[in-house]
Amino acid sequence: MTIATPSLGQSILERAEALARFSDMEDGLTCAFLTPAHRQAQAQLARWMEDAGMTVRIDAIGNVIGRYAADSATANPKVLMTGSHFDTVRNGGRYDGRLGILLPIAVVGALRDAGIRLPYHFEVVGFAEEEGLRFKTSFLASSVLAGRFDPALLDRADVDGVTMREALADSGLPGAGDIDALRAAAVDPSTLAGFVEVHIEQGPVLLNRGLPLGIVTQIAGSSRFQVRAEGLASHAGTTPMDMRRDAATGAAEMILLVESRCAQVPTLVGTVGQLQVPNGSSNVIPAACVFSMDIRAGEDGIREAAIADIVAGIERIAAKRSLKASVERVTPVNNAPCARWLMDQFGAVLKKRGHEVFELPSGAGHDAMMMHRIIDVAMLFVRCGNGGISHNPLETITEEDAQQAAEVFVDFLRHFRVKD
Amino acid sequence: MTIATPSLGQSILERAEALARFSDMEDGLTCAFLTPAHRQAQAQLARWMEDAGMTVRIDAIGNVIGRYAADSATANPKVLMTGSHFDTVRNGGRYDGRLGILLPIAVVGALRDAGIRLPYHFEVVGFAEEEGLRFKTSFLASSVLAGRFDPALLDRADVDGVTMREALADSGLPGAGDIDALRAAAVDPSTLAGFVEVHIEQGPVLLNRGLPLGIVTQIAGSSRFQVRAEGLASHAGTTPMDMRRDAATGAAEMILLVESRCAQVPTLVGTVGQLQVPNGSSNVIPAACVFSMDIRAGEDGIREAAIADIVAGIERIAAKRSLKASVERVTPVNNAPCARWLMDQFGAVLKKRGHEVFELPSGAGHDAMMMHRIIDVAMLFVRCGNGGISHNPLETITEEDAQQAAEVFVDFLRHFRVKD
Repeated sequence: MTIATPSLGQSILERAEALARFSDMEDGLTCAFLTPAHRQAQAQLARWMEDAGMTVRIDAIGNVIGRYAADSATANPKVLMTGSHFDTVRNGGRYDGRLGILLPIAVVGALRDAGIRLPYHFEVVGFAEEEGLRFKTSFLASSVLAGRFDPALLDRADVDGVTMREALADSGLPGAGDIDALRAAAVDPSTLAGFVEVHIEQGPVLLNRGLPLGIVTQIAGSSRFQVRAEGLASHAGTTPMDMRRDAATGAAEMILLVESRCAQVPTLVGTVGQLQVPNGSSNVIPAACVFSMDIRAGEDGIREAAIADIVAGIERIAAKRSLKASVERVTPVNNAPCARWLMDQFGAVLKKRGHEVFELPSGAGHDAMMMHRIIDVAMLFVRCGNGGISHNPLETITEEDAQQAAEVFVDFLRHFRVKD
Repeated sequence: MTIATPSLGQSILERAEALARFSDMEDGLTCAFLTPAHRQAQAQLARWMEDAGMTVRIDAIGNVIGRYAADSATANPKVLMTGSHFDTVRNGGRYDGRLGILLPIAVVGALRDAGIRLPYHFEVVGFAEEEGLRFKTSFLASSVLAGRFDPALLDRADVDGVTMREALADSGLPGAGDIDALRAAAVDPSTLAGFVEVHIEQGPVLLNRGLPLGIVTQIAGSSRFQVRAEGLASHAGTTPMDMRRDAATGAAEMILLVESRCAQVPTLVGTVGQLQVPNGSSNVIPAACVFSMDIRAGEDGIREAAIADIVAGIERIAAKRSLKASVERVTPVNNAPCARWLMDQFGAVLKKRGHEVFELPSGAGHDAMMMHRIIDVAMLFVRCGNGGISHNPLETITEEDAQQAAEVFVDFLRHFRVKD
């Protein structure tokens, strides 16, 4: 049986563009958890899932879950789950996360049009929150699905002081933020056959190798910290340079330490993405400076060694400058290895279709990282254009690559065998 | 004729404490231009001036001006003016500015109690705005009195989007922000005999020398800049360290350059007081980083040489890191030398009272800096406790030092001679 798939790439790109029109900002794409744009995107995804022949449910955290039911011949079918997130970073790209929802929807539509049912339930999840933009918590939506939701997060407030509890209460979602409803939204791992995620690479590796697709070996652990340097506010005009306890210059030295230490190992990265002198005045020596610190590496050992060096360095810099420094660990996440049996099923399809079977680690975190805690996972990376830029409006993929990925995904689904 | 002055120091400190209760914040002193706390402080100063025997007027920018009229025997008396500002930085000290209003008020009260009139009008000005907290403009109030008000400032907005024009319209001040009223508030320089300002040193020089008082030689010019470094937003987990164009690490290197260059010359200081990655996310490499830069020196040449080096260094760092950097000059202020004839009259009093006649430059800007543009000025510095800390709640002076300063000021006024 053949399937008509020539226009899947075009459909995926058009829908990514259409979905990007729902935005919290005017000239760019920001889709934060439970904003009006977020609800519009959620509703649009649900409509596309229904159009493709899926039955759709929306759970207590706002995940949109479409099910393409197994053929009726299979007894007690398991569920193969796929999906990614539809929230974004501020002024982000239109494929990050969304490709992993739109591609499977398009694929299901093609299967339905060809009259093909699979010997397992196939579920596509649009995860409501992964980036942590609004409440500074990542993997929020997948943590609910994985039964790992932390109830303490309900009290966390956004920049306007609205707590997650209040936002959920006003969301119209089932349960309205009730903790029992959030717990009940967890999937039963024994019903699952696996979780696979298609995602834009968000880096330059496939681009530099001239490959459209790659199989992810593991998702790199990340460690996030909030660092606060405290000095002494004093007059900018009257305090000699050698009598200062300047929190900002101390922070500057710490930031350059993060950069230089992480440059020592190729697979190691360290980023200070948030940085501020709270309530700073141009004529006052900063009493405090706060910054975020995100350290990642392909191997936990490399990451932990870098963290130890950096924390020791921050303390050394603080002592030298008579500052007080605090380093608070926010979300430690260990590496999530992908399952070899799932990787091999992707590899077999790639090989059969004439692609190089190329494996690479993921430096970015993904919903699969949380799902890994309850079930075997695998990921298919799609080449990222524009030098590999992501978390940026310049993020892009080609229609041809989306088409190739969709065709591989079709074959993967048709040949997928549940692990014994 | 003798004057009873034993409790002047105590009165000054008590009033500084009372005035500090009018604050925009709960646990500290913030008094920004035209806030409710600012109006309360203004009204309190007017009452104390009246209590001391002065006639009080409030001008179009909110300056409180008390006049202790000349003795009736003097024909066409000139005006000796003193004063300082009653606005503060955020979470500032209670003596910065205010000492230069409360001390002369206390002195006038003592003169009045002793039945002494002076052969000149003596005016005490509580300047409504010097720190620039609300509208990022310093010397606002003295610029009105000196006839140097810039009408373009009326359109400048505070953080809530309220323009100075709107704030003045709602202020209840005479003229309600009308530009003609602001122009008419200028003092006629030909009527002035001079301007003297008492101020807490805001630095450690007098403290380290064991001296309660010092005579200011000049007020150091300051140059302020807004620097913006622009790079490229990208994913924190997937962009290798050597492919980044990180605005924050670039800014960190620039900030350390400001610090190291300014440490090369003892009278030179450089401060980055405001620093921010706008809309930063912990998992996104910063596309932009903005910071303020304040450079001061006792000599204009030293300051300008440092600025040239720093600007060149910023450009070099930006080029090396493939960033774009812009350096915008905000308020260039040249050095304001004090008038030798006024300094000598303070010196004579200090000598007569057994004090060392110690002269020092002021690193901080003061209202006298703006008044210098229309009339000769001098400043008396009072020792700053706690290591010389200022722009901080820990800023302090002793009652004994306030007493000494008040006694010197009484003698200065009684012996003051208008320059021929």
